Amino acid sequence: MKNPNQSNEDQFAKKSQAWSARFSEPVSDLVKRYTASVSFDKRMAQVDIQGSIAHATMLRTVGVLGQDDLSSIERGMAQISTEIAEGRFEWLLDLEDVHLNIEKRLVDLIGDAGKRLHTGRSRNDQVATDIRLWVRTEIDHQIALLGQIRRALATVALEHAETIMPGFTHMQVAQPVTFGHHLLAYAEMFGRDGSRLTDCRKRVNQLPLGAAALAGTSYPIDRQQVADLLGFEGICANSLDAVSDRDFAIEFCAAAALIMTHISRLSEELVIWMSPRVGFIDLADRFCTGSSIMPQKKNPDVPELARGKTGRVNGHLVALLTLMKGQPLAYNKDNQEDKEGLFDTADTVRDTLTIFVDLISGIKVKADAMRAAALQGYATATDLADYLVKKGLPFRDAHETVAHAVRHCEQKACDLADLSLADLKQFNASIDQDVFTVLTLEGSVAARSHIGGTAPVRVREAAQKILAEPSSSVL
Amino acid sequence: MKNPNQSNEDQFAKKSQAWSARFSEPVSDLVKRYTASVSFDKRMAQVDIQGSIAHATMLRTVGVLGQDDLSSIERGMAQISTEIAEGRFEWLLDLEDVHLNIEKRLVDLIGDAGKRLHTGRSRNDQVATDIRLWVRTEIDHQIALLGQIRRALATVALEHAETIMPGFTHMQVAQPVTFGHHLLAYAEMFGRDGSRLTDCRKRVNQLPLGAAALAGTSYPIDRQQVADLLGFEGICANSLDAVSDRDFAIEFCAAAALIMTHISRLSEELVIWMSPRVGFIDLADRFCTGSSIMPQKKNPDVPELARGKTGRVNGHLVALLTLMKGQPLAYNKDNQEDKEGLFDTADTVRDTLTIFVDLISGIKVKADAMRAAALQGYATATDLADYLVKKGLPFRDAHETVAHAVRHCEQKACDLADLSLADLKQFNASIDQDVFTVLTLEGSVAARSHIGGTAPVRVREAAQKILAEPSSSVL
Amino acid sequence: MKNPNQSNEDQFAKKSQAWSARFSEPVSDLVKRYTASVSFDKRMAQVDIQGSIAHATMLRTVGVLGQDDLSSIERGMAQISTEIAEGRFEWLLDLEDVHLNIEKRLVDLIGDAGKRLHTGRSRNDQVATDIRLWVRTEIDHQIALLGQIRRALATVALEHAETIMPGFTHMQVAQPVTFGHHLLAYAEMFGRDGSRLTDCRKRVNQLPLGAAALAGTSYPIDRQQVADLLGFEGICANSLDAVSDRDFAIEFCAAAALIMTHISRLSEELVIWMSPRVGFIDLADRFCTGSSIMPQKKNPDVPELARGKTGRVNGHLVALLTLMKGQPLAYNKDNQEDKEGLFDTADTVRDTLTIFVDLISGIKVKADAMRAAALQGYATATDLADYLVKKGLPFRDAHETVAHAVRHCEQKACDLADLSLADLKQFNASIDQDVFTVLTLEGSVAARSHIGGTAPVRVREAAQKILAEPSSSVL
Amino acid sequence: MKNPNQSNEDQFAKKSQAWSARFSEPVSDLVKRYTASVSFDKRMAQVDIQGSIAHATMLRTVGVLGQDDLSSIERGMAQISTEIAEGRFEWLLDLEDVHLNIEKRLVDLIGDAGKRLHTGRSRNDQVATDIRLWVRTEIDHQIALLGQIRRALATVALEHAETIMPGFTHMQVAQPVTFGHHLLAYAEMFGRDGSRLTDCRKRVNQLPLGAAALAGTSYPIDRQQVADLLGFEGICANSLDAVSDRDFAIEFCAAAALIMTHISRLSEELVIWMSPRVGFIDLADRFCTGSSIMPQKKNPDVPELARGKTGRVNGHLVALLTLMKGQPLAYNKDNQEDKEGLFDTADTVRDTLTIFVDLISGIKVKADAMRAAALQGYATATDLADYLVKKGLPFRDAHETVAHAVRHCEQKACDLADLSLADLKQFNASIDQDVFTVLTLEGSVAARSHIGGTAPVRVREAAQKILAEPSSSVL
Repeated sequence: MKNPNQSNEDQFAKKSQAWSARFSEPVSDLVKRYTASVSFDKRMAQVDIQGSIAHATMLRTVGVLGQDDLSSIERGMAQISTEIAEGRFEWLLDLEDVHLNIEKRLVDLIGDAGKRLHTGRSRNDQVATDIRLWVRTEIDHQIALLGQIRRALATVALEHAETIMPGFTHMQVAQPVTFGHHLLAYAEMFGRDGSRLTDCRKRVNQLPLGAAALAGTSYPIDRQQVADLLGFEGICANSLDAVSDRDFAIEFCAAAALIMTHISRLSEELVIWMSPRVGFIDLADRFCTGSSIMPQKKNPDVPELARGKTGRVNGHLVALLTLMKGQPLAYNKDNQEDKEGLFDTADTVRDTLTIFVDLISGIKVKADAMRAAALQGYATATDLADYLVKKGLPFRDAHETVAHAVRHCEQKACDLADLSLADLKQFNASIDQDVFTVLTLEGSVAARSHIGGTAPVRVREAAQKILAEPSSSVL
Repeated sequence: MKNPNQSNEDQFAKKSQAWSARFSEPVSDLVKRYTASVSFDKRMAQVDIQGSIAHATMLRTVGVLGQDDLSSIERGMAQISTEIAEGRFEWLLDLEDVHLNIEKRLVDLIGDAGKRLHTGRSRNDQVATDIRLWVRTEIDHQIALLGQIRRALATVALEHAETIMPGFTHMQVAQPVTFGHHLLAYAEMFGRDGSRLTDCRKRVNQLPLGAAALAGTSYPIDRQQVADLLGFEGICANSLDAVSDRDFAIEFCAAAALIMTHISRLSEELVIWMSPRVGFIDLADRFCTGSSIMPQKKNPDVPELARGKTGRVNGHLVALLTLMKGQPLAYNKDNQEDKEGLFDTADTVRDTLTIFVDLISGIKVKADAMRAAALQGYATATDLADYLVKKGLPFRDAHETVAHAVRHCEQKACDLADLSLADLKQFNASIDQDVFTVLTLEGSVAARSHIGGTAPVRVREAAQKILAEPSSSVL
Repeated sequence: MKNPNQSNEDQFAKKSQAWSARFSEPVSDLVKRYTASVSFDKRMAQVDIQGSIAHATMLRTVGVLGQDDLSSIERGMAQISTEIAEGRFEWLLDLEDVHLNIEKRLVDLIGDAGKRLHTGRSRNDQVATDIRLWVRTEIDHQIALLGQIRRALATVALEHAETIMPGFTHMQVAQPVTFGHHLLAYAEMFGRDGSRLTDCRKRVNQLPLGAAALAGTSYPIDRQQVADLLGFEGICANSLDAVSDRDFAIEFCAAAALIMTHISRLSEELVIWMSPRVGFIDLADRFCTGSSIMPQKKNPDVPELARGKTGRVNGHLVALLTLMKGQPLAYNKDNQEDKEGLFDTADTVRDTLTIFVDLISGIKVKADAMRAAALQGYATATDLADYLVKKGLPFRDAHETVAHAVRHCEQKACDLADLSLADLKQFNASIDQDVFTVLTLEGSVAARSHIGGTAPVRVREAAQKILAEPSSSVL
Repeated sequence: MKNPNQSNEDQFAKKSQAWSARFSEPVSDLVKRYTASVSFDKRMAQVDIQGSIAHATMLRTVGVLGQDDLSSIERGMAQISTEIAEGRFEWLLDLEDVHLNIEKRLVDLIGDAGKRLHTGRSRNDQVATDIRLWVRTEIDHQIALLGQIRRALATVALEHAETIMPGFTHMQVAQPVTFGHHLLAYAEMFGRDGSRLTDCRKRVNQLPLGAAALAGTSYPIDRQQVADLLGFEGICANSLDAVSDRDFAIEFCAAAALIMTHISRLSEELVIWMSPRVGFIDLADRFCTGSSIMPQKKNPDVPELARGKTGRVNGHLVALLTLMKGQPLAYNKDNQEDKEGLFDTADTVRDTLTIFVDLISGIKVKADAMRAAALQGYATATDLADYLVKKGLPFRDAHETVAHAVRHCEQKACDLADLSLADLKQFNASIDQDVFTVLTLEGSVAARSHIGGTAPVRVREAAQKILAEPSSSVL
């Protein structure tokens, strides 16, 4: 076997050759395309190379590989990494997946040493390792983006800590809030999202390599060294589980579905706020498009599309859960289906968050329209009820009294603050001149000054706390 | 405006230019990529062209276009169609979608006539028309494939109309059935799938064009003519609904989810049947792969992967349902998300069915293993109970009697047919010599000869009925 | 065996007794509760009785049952049906499901004849028959309700065939439409829903009975007679498929998910329209609630809740698809999970449609607010573009011209109709006095008078067509 | 207002009365039933009472309530709690939900003090608090159950640390593993599930109370005191978010979906292992049922049903995600739909885990069948390849050599260990007598002795580690 490349051809030139000795017929082109994953799993090429180098380094340490072999592998992989990065690598469908493509090229470049690389591992633990490395990077990116979006929200919130808008429940005017307070609700959501990803990361960051096909290997491998080299916090403690577990991908997709759910809620509000009947904000032109038939349109395309993309992320989550349902151990080919949805989930979340950081910064607030809307709809009725309670009425009775006053105003088509003291006294004799402070929008929001309340002082405090958070160095 | 191409550049070179006069800043590259659909909707190019030609033909008929314009459009579109088919068409992200890309090229080629094409329509009704045409073609293909898979199943069923295997409930041996009968259960499922697609097709095959952006158009259009030219059975009767309706896509995806559910069940059985402990069948090598680490493996990759792909199709269905939930009328940008999942659903089903037609034909049946398994597990116990009922026992009492006999056999580690007449009489005195015919596998299956029963005569009849069905001319 | 009731106690008193002879220990109470279905499947009691009587009648015809037995069964079942209808039937968890509960009671009442009823069938085909009968009834009800909701929509649409509101795309004012036209978009959706249910009904309405456990039965049954007695259009043609098929339930749930999707869209609009900033409509008080803390609130609870209920119906669809994924033939206990989600889906859709029929009739239209909104946002810009095209400009150029005019209006804070002819001529010299007709709301809607257009004449026609539809006699 | 009960009647007797002054018509019975939640949210009664007492205690501390009022509330609530626990509490649909039912009863019992309880809160923050308290309890229970199931698995694993079975990939025999090792794979999964719930609990355990309807309250509340009294770790930092956030419920459902996914995989294996063709285990009779028609059947009902229940839990997750998609802030009635699916998810997981703890303990292992199966299928082929690598062959070449040997064995219908040394040497000359140790099952598993490998020593170690974990005191 003098010419390693020649022999390599025999084994790899057609991927089916890898187990050819036992097979009497080749797979058809359609089957090949149907079962191959290289068209999408090549995205994991760089982490695949990292994993291989760590594996080879460990094999050298434990004496399975010689130093020459390791050096050859490192050199070969460096070249392959460059070829891929520069778009010069030729991906072959016949070689099925990213792993065989890279291994074949390695053997082409360095001969027998390349054939020794796969010692003590299997594609089952190799691919599990690759996906975890890939997801870990994505998580770090998304945590950083969530931090950015929180800062973007806090910046606008700080600016609008005193800008009063109607707070809605059931899309009806409920009580006045500040626009800053409203935006910070989303900062909370994205904060939880970051916290969820941080927790998920711990479970992602466990090393499967060493599980081999399913049972471990008879080579004297050192899994801890590999874990250390690749920055894994722990080692998958059961080989069967290691190759079949896709929990981490599902957990990531579930966290992503919540991120997109939050985006969908914010988007819904942006779209409504930008609708001419509401007119609370304007979005920067760069996030909008016009119409091919109606020249006057300015459509909030980005939030609409982002809202729609919630669907695909929810769908990928369902796909992964369906995939794993009822699968016997250990590895089954079904699992190849874990990647496309996962990749698309990560891409969707990353693109969406990136755009929203910029989009939020570009929100133009129409404070007058917000204020006008807050004055419509008896937003301070609760304040009147609270006022009456403080004068001694039981809450439920105060509530009933105010309901009568509101009904009276509706008939007169005026606001509560427009009633005269005499009018107000008709509903309850204890009402006095001081009621008018309570009935103003400013009085209403200022009064809610406990933790989490909408008072400007609280909003400013909350925004500043977010702005003081350290920003991730990933981006 | 002497140079139409020049002017065209102004309008199209950057897609955002189409409404540029009102917009003060361009969209960023990321926003452009995020909102553009050309990377995937270019798959609809040929139906987009068909739709445009039908529209133009109608505009000519009603006098909005001149004959020269129509001829130019037809000529230009013919050239574009060829360019696309030959892979020479340059798709530009800046032009956002398939529609603007084609329209821009048309204007490049034929000038002002191209600009007149969009008269009386909008991208909203145009894209709805395109998707329907695209889905209609897919449905026709899948109906034909479902017919093929039924014939493949019937062919094998006919060959194995008398091959006895254990019928399972709860994965426990229940009663003997024939392998042909078992396969025909799937022929029923795929038959229903075809019937569902046929019904879905009626609702797909309705013309939205003419709804324009949402309200219809002030041009004197003739929607019936367009419908006739494009082979639509009907016309969407409300313009707002026409541009916003994606029911047909969801219904198609739901039908596809059921197809894949059936495939997943068949795949599960194929995988189990091929497992060495069961060993009922072997799959042709061309649907299997080996292992990178275990040289002895022959893995049923195709059925496993197909089973896994159920997940993605279910996921796309969820994505579309989520997408449409709570969307106000008429068209929102969310709807752009309708396509990728739909396309992938159609591709997945088409590829899977195509492969399964071949895979089913290649099933190698191990009749001996099936028979051996049927003899294990007291498969004819029900026959004994029925025998007793015919001798006069109430069914529930007969059932109890047989339970005692089975328990007795279990303790003796033998089958019911292995008991002596004397032994059997201990359980009920009415048992006689004729019981032994009833206790054979052949006797059991032959006795179930009503419609839908497993008797070979019925299986043959059912298979022949399927084989006599006319095959679709689509494939 | 003189006392049938005594013997009956032995067999049924504890359901586990039914197969007790082979089992060495009873199930625990938790397992009993976990595996029992009677708490929910008792809803199918009346159809279970219908099915049993049809089965017994057939057994009599083919000579398996005597006339006395049949008469006893009919008498016993009549009494049981009454007991259930009057709430006097005692359901026992120990008897697991609706079938054993009824059968046990029958044996209590009529002795051995009751024990003969189960001859030639199994719970597997019995439950499949029951569910189909149950779903068939639900479908008939829902088709009738969908007809009612269409008539309710058409009635309001007819009244508001000329009431102009802004048509929205992207929640931005696009072109004027009439409120009647807008409502009829939903009539189209609900029409398709009815059509889908009608198609689904065909596949529901097939008889599984006769499949017995999975392979058919050795009794000389006449399945066609049973089908005729129960009103089934056809007979499940493969016994294995008959007991394991739940396609019909999934297809029904998919159709239900689309119904709820349409309800969610309508609800979203009702909520937005009732929001004070929009103020297009008011809902009758009986569909709204107030607030425990904010006395002024009138919340559109019903549409909000209905929108939320889309989630549960989508969820049930996913549950059923997940349930069936990868299930081997024939019957597995998993399938018991088919019912709760199905029942809840049917209940949700039925309640929601019933309420919406009334809710739609009670919509109070605020035509002035609609008109005012339509005048805001350059809704007739498309009409101006069309005007220019008719004057000879290519469509794309006309579009660009109008965009300039709109931008000019925005700067002047006026509508297009507010510009003077001189102003308008600046944008294109061909504009003339007749442009002002085109720029009115009435002119705009009237011009869209083709099939499906928003012109009042078309809306009236479409509404009257719906009102002329025959109404179902089911309700 | 001398008779508080009288006045109370006015306010509560019909729930719609609570805001009656502004409403001109009552809701219909169907609407009442449709919108009421008391039929399911009464499950939260005890936590609702806990929350109310904590709220009242705080109101007393800050001076809003007097000590007499607080004492009355505590006394009244104690009585109500008892009435509910003893099933004597009368739940009224007219009072809509658990909150109004309890509050009304409180006012009945203690008069005006009861009316003061609702001061400074709203049902929006009250219900959010209740759900969090309820979910927190469920999480603690499930974490404890997951610990129990891990111990059950570890106990059986310890017993079968040396019991050899075939390890499967693709349902084909791959390499020998021990049954203990296989079971511990599930212990890993359930361990991750516990870890996920622990992380989720942090985000559940945040106090929403104090957010009032959406904006906070003008009373001088002390949210930290309430948090401390109720054992919350933190306080929701934004009032709008506090009332609208349901992330915690979705995250819990996602974690539950993974638990059920693991259960579905284990169930699938149990069902397959108990199938007569495999025969690896037997389940205790108490988890199985017989058949109504086939007396010989022993069906693994519990694992099948559990596998099926994966569907409903996945469905509830989708329901909640769909529910929240696109909801504007702050509270909308849609959110009432958050509870039923959540409750059913918790019930399903709790019942399933409880049963599985017992079921696992009752697994009867058929070690002979496992061993026989492991000897079938060339399970030690990888060991031969590894042997050759250690003799100096590159891994890929060793793999190819073994493939030839396996093919040879297949033709001879024997195992690798059955070949003579001479035969083996034909494939590679370096093979020597020591190969036969490598080719035994015991040699194969013992060789995989690194972390996570299947060697008995490792399995024992891993099982003992789990058994040494402290058990939760919750159960």
